Amino acid sequence: MQHSPTTMKDKQYQTISSRNHIAIKRIRVLQDREERDRKGLFYGEGVRFLVEAVKHQARIETVVVARSLCKHGNVLLIIEKLRRSGVPILEVSAEVMHSIASIDDPQGVGVVVRQKWRTLEQVKLDGKLCWIALDSIQSPGNFGSMIRTASAVGAAGFILLDENADPYDPATVRASMGALFTQRFVRTTPEQLTQWKLPRQWKVIGTSPTAQLSYRQADFKTTPTIVLFGSERKGLRTELLAICDAVVSIPMSTKIDSLNIAVAAGVVLYEVWEQRARDA
Amino acid sequence: MQHSPTTMKDKQYQTISSRNHIAIKRIRVLQDREERDRKGLFYGEGVRFLVEAVKHQARIETVVVARSLCKHGNVLLIIEKLRRSGVPILEVSAEVMHSIASIDDPQGVGVVVRQKWRTLEQVKLDGKLCWIALDSIQSPGNFGSMIRTASAVGAAGFILLDENADPYDPATVRASMGALFTQRFVRTTPEQLTQWKLPRQWKVIGTSPTAQLSYRQADFKTTPTIVLFGSERKGLRTELLAICDAVVSIPMSTKIDSLNIAVAAGVVLYEVWEQRARDA
Repeated sequence: MQHSPTTMKDKQYQTISSRNHIAIKRIRVLQDREERDRKGLFYGEGVRFLVEAVKHQARIETVVVARSLCKHGNVLLIIEKLRRSGVPILEVSAEVMHSIASIDDPQGVGVVVRQKWRTLEQVKLDGKLCWIALDSIQSPGNFGSMIRTASAVGAAGFILLDENADPYDPATVRASMGALFTQRFVRTTPEQLTQWKLPRQWKVIGTSPTAQLSYRQADFKTTPTIVLFGSERKGLRTELLAICDAVVSIPMSTKIDSLNIAVAAGVVLYEVWEQRARDA
Repeated sequence: MQHSPTTMKDKQYQTISSRNHIAIKRIRVLQDREERDRKGLFYGEGVRFLVEAVKHQARIETVVVARSLCKHGNVLLIIEKLRRSGVPILEVSAEVMHSIASIDDPQGVGVVVRQKWRTLEQVKLDGKLCWIALDSIQSPGNFGSMIRTASAVGAAGFILLDENADPYDPATVRASMGALFTQRFVRTTPEQLTQWKLPRQWKVIGTSPTAQLSYRQADFKTTPTIVLFGSERKGLRTELLAICDAVVSIPMSTKIDSLNIAVAAGVVLYEVWEQRARDA
């Protein structure tokens, strides 16, 4: 964003009322994956998103506010605090806010935040429950639900094994309900993960509909664990099965039954939680 | 549908190529809740949906087929069998199929099916795991995921306590992945459910983020059970808490964490499954 804090302060109540304003266009393009990747930014909406971004010290690049849509008094207090610390604040009309919103009720506030990525070398347990590895995940909404579950069980973060999954996709951000900032994200390949695992004591437990071992029989208690989920449609790729110390399945009534990937992840991650709680 | 089987047979390869054809319009309006309710019909798409509808002896009113989109040979065999048993078959162009499709890849086949509703009096366990009651559920996709989970754990069906939830919503049908036909559906009110429960031995176990009892400590083993889920946003209404024999929560790392309702239902329903399996 090109506005300097001083400029913004001078005209702090000057409201942008054109949806074609250059600053608005710059935010709208963040809906596009390529633009997000190129700029290393993303856009999230709503009061909870703003609060969580501040709480987790995310790098906030710009705040967009439509005062007429703000029903929560403390939003404006938070925004004033950010303004004083030098964050550019864009005052916009309700119409402009809706033109960049991906949700029906953006609650008058949106935030441009810098993406944060870690490397495999930074994968540590740090007292957390586990890490989660995803082979490929088709639905951004399901990914968002999984991020929410990961935060609820106290997982450390996600290791993404393909290029498709983007935690910063608007639908993922929306479905994660602010839980995004509690999780770390690493993008790597099956090959690199295999290399990384070799000298380490980490255990990888994969999930597959055809595995014999029930998720309740697996040992999630000992050594740091990565729980690995395959794609919704195809399960785990062979090169990923190769790095698994165990592969588990969730029992089902009939062979044609299947679970939504976010539901399956929830069921398995709560078993990890429960085994640790029993152990503690 | 007004076509008699004989008429369809006479012109069985006459393909509808206008998206404004009256028979096509009659299907398209089923996207609308009011029309679905009024006609007692719904529309589902794809090979698996067709196969499951046939397998579960659903009342199929019409099959729509775009031969050029059919990649699965046995679809045409199933359709011929239905045609011979008197089911009207609408042959349509690929363009017409896409005009009524709610998914990108309708696989060349869609089915108009009669809705099936049961009464509270018909709520029996019949060897199934449990029934599931829903207070209100905002997202049709989440409802569909829950139907999929219900089928996987072998639940009997859903008791719907408000007017909003519609198992026959296109997004719910889509997310249920054909599992819809394994479940029974009852629509009632909290008052009627309370009256129904009085003389009966059924146990209602509710879920609430504020409950003290963990879902793992609850007793899901004895007596037939209804597991009751509140709304995504507000939890359980007071009049519903009143009919609960126990209220359980899913533990979370922090108070502001929360789970997607379909994920929460999956975690609890798999605990019910596990307790029964241990008992068996």
